[in-house]
Amino acid sequence: MFDKFREECGVFGIYNHPEAANLSYLGLHALQHRGQESAGIVTSDEVQMRTHLGMGLVQEIFDEDTLETLPGIHAIGHVRYSTTGASHLKNAQPFFAETAHGPIAFAHNGNLKNAAEVRHRLEEYGSIFQTTMDTEVFAHLYARSHKEKLVDRLIDALRKVQGAYSLVCLVEKRLLAARDPFGFRPLVLGRVRDAWVVTSETCALDLIEGEYVRDVEPGEVIMISSKGLESFRPFAKVEPRQCIFEHIYFARPDSVVFGRSVYSVRQEFGRQLAREHGVPADVVVPVPDSGIVAALGYSEESGVPFAMGLIRNHYVGRTFIEPEQSIRHFGVKLKLNAVRGVLEGKRVVVVDDSIVRGTTSRKIVAMLRDAGAAEVHVRISSPPTCFPCYFGIDTPTRAELIAANQQVAEIAQFLTADSLGYISHQGLEKATDYGPYVYCDACFTGNYPIGGRDTAEGVQLGLF
Amino acid sequence: MFDKFREECGVFGIYNHPEAANLSYLGLHALQHRGQESAGIVTSDEVQMRTHLGMGLVQEIFDEDTLETLPGIHAIGHVRYSTTGASHLKNAQPFFAETAHGPIAFAHNGNLKNAAEVRHRLEEYGSIFQTTMDTEVFAHLYARSHKEKLVDRLIDALRKVQGAYSLVCLVEKRLLAARDPFGFRPLVLGRVRDAWVVTSETCALDLIEGEYVRDVEPGEVIMISSKGLESFRPFAKVEPRQCIFEHIYFARPDSVVFGRSVYSVRQEFGRQLAREHGVPADVVVPVPDSGIVAALGYSEESGVPFAMGLIRNHYVGRTFIEPEQSIRHFGVKLKLNAVRGVLEGKRVVVVDDSIVRGTTSRKIVAMLRDAGAAEVHVRISSPPTCFPCYFGIDTPTRAELIAANQQVAEIAQFLTADSLGYISHQGLEKATDYGPYVYCDACFTGNYPIGGRDTAEGVQLGLF
Amino acid sequence: MFDKFREECGVFGIYNHPEAANLSYLGLHALQHRGQESAGIVTSDEVQMRTHLGMGLVQEIFDEDTLETLPGIHAIGHVRYSTTGASHLKNAQPFFAETAHGPIAFAHNGNLKNAAEVRHRLEEYGSIFQTTMDTEVFAHLYARSHKEKLVDRLIDALRKVQGAYSLVCLVEKRLLAARDPFGFRPLVLGRVRDAWVVTSETCALDLIEGEYVRDVEPGEVIMISSKGLESFRPFAKVEPRQCIFEHIYFARPDSVVFGRSVYSVRQEFGRQLAREHGVPADVVVPVPDSGIVAALGYSEESGVPFAMGLIRNHYVGRTFIEPEQSIRHFGVKLKLNAVRGVLEGKRVVVVDDSIVRGTTSRKIVAMLRDAGAAEVHVRISSPPTCFPCYFGIDTPTRAELIAANQQVAEIAQFLTADSLGYISHQGLEKATDYGPYVYCDACFTGNYPIGGRDTAEGVQLGLF
Amino acid sequence: MFDKFREECGVFGIYNHPEAANLSYLGLHALQHRGQESAGIVTSDEVQMRTHLGMGLVQEIFDEDTLETLPGIHAIGHVRYSTTGASHLKNAQPFFAETAHGPIAFAHNGNLKNAAEVRHRLEEYGSIFQTTMDTEVFAHLYARSHKEKLVDRLIDALRKVQGAYSLVCLVEKRLLAARDPFGFRPLVLGRVRDAWVVTSETCALDLIEGEYVRDVEPGEVIMISSKGLESFRPFAKVEPRQCIFEHIYFARPDSVVFGRSVYSVRQEFGRQLAREHGVPADVVVPVPDSGIVAALGYSEESGVPFAMGLIRNHYVGRTFIEPEQSIRHFGVKLKLNAVRGVLEGKRVVVVDDSIVRGTTSRKIVAMLRDAGAAEVHVRISSPPTCFPCYFGIDTPTRAELIAANQQVAEIAQFLTADSLGYISHQGLEKATDYGPYVYCDACFTGNYPIGGRDTAEGVQLGLF
Repeated sequence: MFDKFREECGVFGIYNHPEAANLSYLGLHALQHRGQESAGIVTSDEVQMRTHLGMGLVQEIFDEDTLETLPGIHAIGHVRYSTTGASHLKNAQPFFAETAHGPIAFAHNGNLKNAAEVRHRLEEYGSIFQTTMDTEVFAHLYARSHKEKLVDRLIDALRKVQGAYSLVCLVEKRLLAARDPFGFRPLVLGRVRDAWVVTSETCALDLIEGEYVRDVEPGEVIMISSKGLESFRPFAKVEPRQCIFEHIYFARPDSVVFGRSVYSVRQEFGRQLAREHGVPADVVVPVPDSGIVAALGYSEESGVPFAMGLIRNHYVGRTFIEPEQSIRHFGVKLKLNAVRGVLEGKRVVVVDDSIVRGTTSRKIVAMLRDAGAAEVHVRISSPPTCFPCYFGIDTPTRAELIAANQQVAEIAQFLTADSLGYISHQGLEKATDYGPYVYCDACFTGNYPIGGRDTAEGVQLGLF
Repeated sequence: MFDKFREECGVFGIYNHPEAANLSYLGLHALQHRGQESAGIVTSDEVQMRTHLGMGLVQEIFDEDTLETLPGIHAIGHVRYSTTGASHLKNAQPFFAETAHGPIAFAHNGNLKNAAEVRHRLEEYGSIFQTTMDTEVFAHLYARSHKEKLVDRLIDALRKVQGAYSLVCLVEKRLLAARDPFGFRPLVLGRVRDAWVVTSETCALDLIEGEYVRDVEPGEVIMISSKGLESFRPFAKVEPRQCIFEHIYFARPDSVVFGRSVYSVRQEFGRQLAREHGVPADVVVPVPDSGIVAALGYSEESGVPFAMGLIRNHYVGRTFIEPEQSIRHFGVKLKLNAVRGVLEGKRVVVVDDSIVRGTTSRKIVAMLRDAGAAEVHVRISSPPTCFPCYFGIDTPTRAELIAANQQVAEIAQFLTADSLGYISHQGLEKATDYGPYVYCDACFTGNYPIGGRDTAEGVQLGLF
Repeated sequence: MFDKFREECGVFGIYNHPEAANLSYLGLHALQHRGQESAGIVTSDEVQMRTHLGMGLVQEIFDEDTLETLPGIHAIGHVRYSTTGASHLKNAQPFFAETAHGPIAFAHNGNLKNAAEVRHRLEEYGSIFQTTMDTEVFAHLYARSHKEKLVDRLIDALRKVQGAYSLVCLVEKRLLAARDPFGFRPLVLGRVRDAWVVTSETCALDLIEGEYVRDVEPGEVIMISSKGLESFRPFAKVEPRQCIFEHIYFARPDSVVFGRSVYSVRQEFGRQLAREHGVPADVVVPVPDSGIVAALGYSEESGVPFAMGLIRNHYVGRTFIEPEQSIRHFGVKLKLNAVRGVLEGKRVVVVDDSIVRGTTSRKIVAMLRDAGAAEVHVRISSPPTCFPCYFGIDTPTRAELIAANQQVAEIAQFLTADSLGYISHQGLEKATDYGPYVYCDACFTGNYPIGGRDTAEGVQLGLF
Repeated sequence: MFDKFREECGVFGIYNHPEAANLSYLGLHALQHRGQESAGIVTSDEVQMRTHLGMGLVQEIFDEDTLETLPGIHAIGHVRYSTTGASHLKNAQPFFAETAHGPIAFAHNGNLKNAAEVRHRLEEYGSIFQTTMDTEVFAHLYARSHKEKLVDRLIDALRKVQGAYSLVCLVEKRLLAARDPFGFRPLVLGRVRDAWVVTSETCALDLIEGEYVRDVEPGEVIMISSKGLESFRPFAKVEPRQCIFEHIYFARPDSVVFGRSVYSVRQEFGRQLAREHGVPADVVVPVPDSGIVAALGYSEESGVPFAMGLIRNHYVGRTFIEPEQSIRHFGVKLKLNAVRGVLEGKRVVVVDDSIVRGTTSRKIVAMLRDAGAAEVHVRISSPPTCFPCYFGIDTPTRAELIAANQQVAEIAQFLTADSLGYISHQGLEKATDYGPYVYCDACFTGNYPIGGRDTAEGVQLGLF
């Protein structure tokens, strides 16, 4: 309903815990912001693997009865994002397959650049596909590998794909995890008592009282078995390109992502924004919830008081029927209401994390004015988003991205804002302290680490 | 899941609008915070009345198909709160009845003090009861009235009950509304183009682009018909006793309640709290969402920076299965997570609106300490809640109310807080600027406007 | 889907059995043919009464979990028939009411002739109605009675109504049953070990291994308590008028109804039909399932071989979408298919129990011809149905009853049958051996025991 | 709930009809007796293929809305049988796959003898399996074929499997059908106006007003395209071995199967049974519904009158809760009730189609005696079933088959019958007029056309 980039998934894996399914379900609940369309868990009791998948929120899909159908001490789970279109149970993950090497399940966050090409080749060799998910590609490549060792078969498969993947895999007695060489999507390693956990964000560890150990590193493959954890580095080392949007919007502020507190980074974005785009004002108002932390940073740096001038209704679901007597800003109004007492007669700075199409921002500006704001200054804690993402984020086409087609001044005019300021690219670098970590910022710069989806230079697939 | 007093309902009525059902449904969505257990709408096309009731959230109960079964230009709707126990479709409202005077529907926010007694008398006279709701009492009393005029029959019924009611009623061609003489629960009057609206909070008007006209006044009965709005004052005037907890916790901060902005009042509570219970600290953290505005006030007054040190997971529903390997603060942790980056090594002031049993607050203090807080000072933007409410709020018994049984110092010890401060009673008065409006504060003082439920002095029921 | 008169309900009551709910549920399953729209059970453990109602078949509404919510040693249950229109959960029975005399539940098979009038009077006296069922009238009348004894209050209520009722009622510690003075609808008394059972048909006793004791007699009121069974005869004795259609179509052939085996009576109808309307033929084919037993009788008497020339598909539910490329006899074809091997070149006698509108019969004749029948002779094991029923059966208006508007020869022509024969009225009398039992045959004769619904002569309602 | 062999599926395909999905759904409804667990339809509009699968009955899975999601002029459909155990949506058919040759869907009735072996080989070559159905094997073999022509790829796949299959396949613009060389399961070809139909039984043609053209012959492969119907004979000719149990029990009596009227064959079984096992008796009673036609034959031949001494309750679903106060013959009693008026004091011949474990028959004998039968003679219209089926029928193991372990006299004793007679093998041959058609009767003789599942002699799989 909001005009945002969308995270495409969260993953969770746990090895050696008597309540593997239940902790997975709690972990997925903590990752629910990363995907609300479907969820699933696969468990293993070292003899048999079992699956439960469903459409909806984690708590709608799993209850005491379904969790009881999932015995076992190892498990992986997945939450998937919500789109309006092709949302089918078939595309729920983890993806489970019977292979000559035994059963295996995959849970994947990311997008493969060469998925269509690999898929085409696999079909030529006789594979049949059941889903439209990139994840199924891993399963076929794994099934076709002739390597003797489990981990080598997975590495074999990974060598044939290009793109973004933070992956957890479960076989009867082992848990595997892998992160692509650029490390686009996050993946962390933790412990809960004697169990190992691999998951997208640390907030999942917090809920189950787990301890953060370290990030799974870009290009690292991990195998956890009765012999403990083994780490592999099968790929040539490249400069990591971790997704800056995790810090801007996707990750929960209580998570530590890419080694840094999301809250602190986001707050620093706000401060930097104030330094770059200060304006005389009476109140700083966030677009809740995602804009709150940056707005606090802006308020601190600028000294302009912070207020919750927009109140969010958290009961909003998928669809509402708009009256024929059309309501202005209908979609936004279902979620947000402006507080006249806070806004009336005030010069308002409204802070949001990003502008995609601009339609929502325009409605918010109008709502603030309707509630009496004397001036509305829009401040965005990311640079203009001008390019689509091919590495795990659901973004519109360039044609739909307002910043790809209009100058800042034009956008300000479209929003009917008194002024508009985006954080600068340099400001972003400074605020995140670029250095040992280099981020992927292709959505701002078009500087894609492995080229756009249309310009793939091909991968060695001769091994089939 | 949280340890809170609970609002018991929200009401909405609309007269003379071509999309009466759809606007009711949107209005109920805006009032969803007042009740999540069940909801319902009754419409009239001036010939026939139609009902749709269901369990769950407004958006789960109503969709395009169900709204199409509710044609008509007048409607009333209701949302009901969620309890764990006796939650049945039978107790969903509006309550519809066929009477000798024709069909009528009632939507009621409040609680009658003498419901059991009146019900007993009605049964003696041969009435049969279908529900356990006080609301049904109004229907029986109305049906038994021999008055000739519609409004007189309603007044006849109201005269026989004591307690809290903000009521909307629909007959085929008229909409009625009534507020008890003390005006315990809110009720406002508004307009949408040519239509009249009567509803619990102004946020329902905002969503449908309605205009606030005035409060339905304590003791006022309103009838809206083709002749327009008529106002009646059938009761002896008493000092109003409007529920202070609407300002403390129940109402949405974007509403104007009892003539005052909830946001502004709540912010002033925070400021007053800082004046009364200032303490050297590094950060002010709200318990989200209800503590945010007061925490902002506290921060402003004290100069201690505000931060979102607790992050709320909004995907939480009714039940989660706790692992046998028990998780500390499980129930709270499903909803809240502490942000270590904000809290570590800091002296923390945590602001909440109230403490009921103290169990949740105790867990929150522990979570803050686990995340590294050096000191935890709890500040509450209401006085100690020592008495149950009999006027429309779901409260535990005195035995369960921690403040009814322990001194502040003991409570602080129970919470393991470094200090605990409640806003004083005088501070509350000052912050709300007591005067033309007098609030009911019986939950703090035990000063019940019409005595406890057990000490009813009886009402004239001789008219049957 | 078929063109039949429809039974309007089945009732079941059990007193003093440790598994009262479970036996009720089995009993209702055995009575499922009497109503498929909704079902319900009310139980009492002598302290509390509990209700579960639902839409659909007994086995869809009740499972282990719902039965566990119905503890108690006494119970009553009800199945209700299926119509297309106003089918609401609200109209499911038993009807439960809280009264000054305590809680009571009613399950009713029948129709009251003066329901509207009594209801009107009750509303004038201040009663409010929740349903459109006649059953609710009993509850109000009972609640308003000032008699001291339970059974007298029930009798008080019964005295104020006219029409058909086979009724079971449950209060906390007693089970009551009543049958109207004419005894329109069946009601039998049985035992299961130490428990008493009152139910519509003996097939319900068979399933639970109960023993048939006797019929509850027309005009009898029964009360079962810890003191045992007491019988009351509060009404002036009249000639009984038991519904002949129970023998023709409604009751299951394995039941004993009004003291006679339904199977034997139905078979005798077939024999009599053969005597009255013999015709040279090669095969006798029933319209399954209801025509089977009469067709067997016809075959025996006539010597013409019996064959299942029409096969029934028992998986048919409510709705099917007909192709635009319209299929001939679509509705009937979903349920029945003709067997060419049986019919080809044969002179066919097809036996059915009744013709209502004639539409289905016409399609069946066409289906038989399409499958090669050389001649089709329709034989009906009841006289022409010319009048609607007001005593518990759902019948169309006179205008829709083909026999009310056309002569037999015209109907034969409409059906495109080579001949058509109805059993004569005298034949029916002879076959059922009229005598100590006198049947209501108003649907054939228009001879209504208490006049049509429109000509009620009024009842003493002055007692209110 | 009954002790029967179970049919494992029904298939339906239609080519070139504007309402392909709707006719498929009606066809599947007519085939519902062949499978009640799940159903599905795949359609093609020559550009896109679409699938809808679900658990339950055809009418529960498909309604107007779901049929609207299935546009197209070609379609195939499938109904699957109901077992208590591994019944998953995943195993619903048709099975749809994306291949290098484009999308294809398979609907299959039968069982492959070498499925496990082929599957194993496919997995070794890198295929991954999603279901436990034999059907998926066809899809993988097809996908791996390098033949250029569609039909050759299908034939390529069929060459690698052994066992029973009546198969329909849909690609975007063509419909294929195939029947294994032995022709175990039925498959017929028909027309509806300009459309071709391929389906399991002629009753599906009857419902949609289709015309029977001929059987798809054993070993025949058919391709229907814009060029019309082409027939292929890729296999060496063998003597057909069509399943005799289709005539005994599975097929609907109104179908023509293997070129003969099921009704007529079944009636002849009854006559033959009377010739072989006549006994002085007063009444012949069928076990409904499957025993009715044979019982009629028995009655005709023997002159003993036929009666419906057992009445079936057609509302029975999957599960019922038995009371702790156990009811004798509970499972059977839910479905059947004995008619005392028919049975009392009589010498009864009860006719059923088969005895599997004997438990149900034993209960039926007891029920008949409880209802007063003086003697009970059991007559079975098939020979003793001593061997399990590997060609598409769900049968228990030999250990559970009573006739595999006990002599007829012992079985009679177990049933507590006065006598027991099975039709002889020669009688069966005579009644079916063995000749141009040779049946598979391995369940009586153990004479498996291609050996038991455990003794497969291997197939040429070297082509992969």
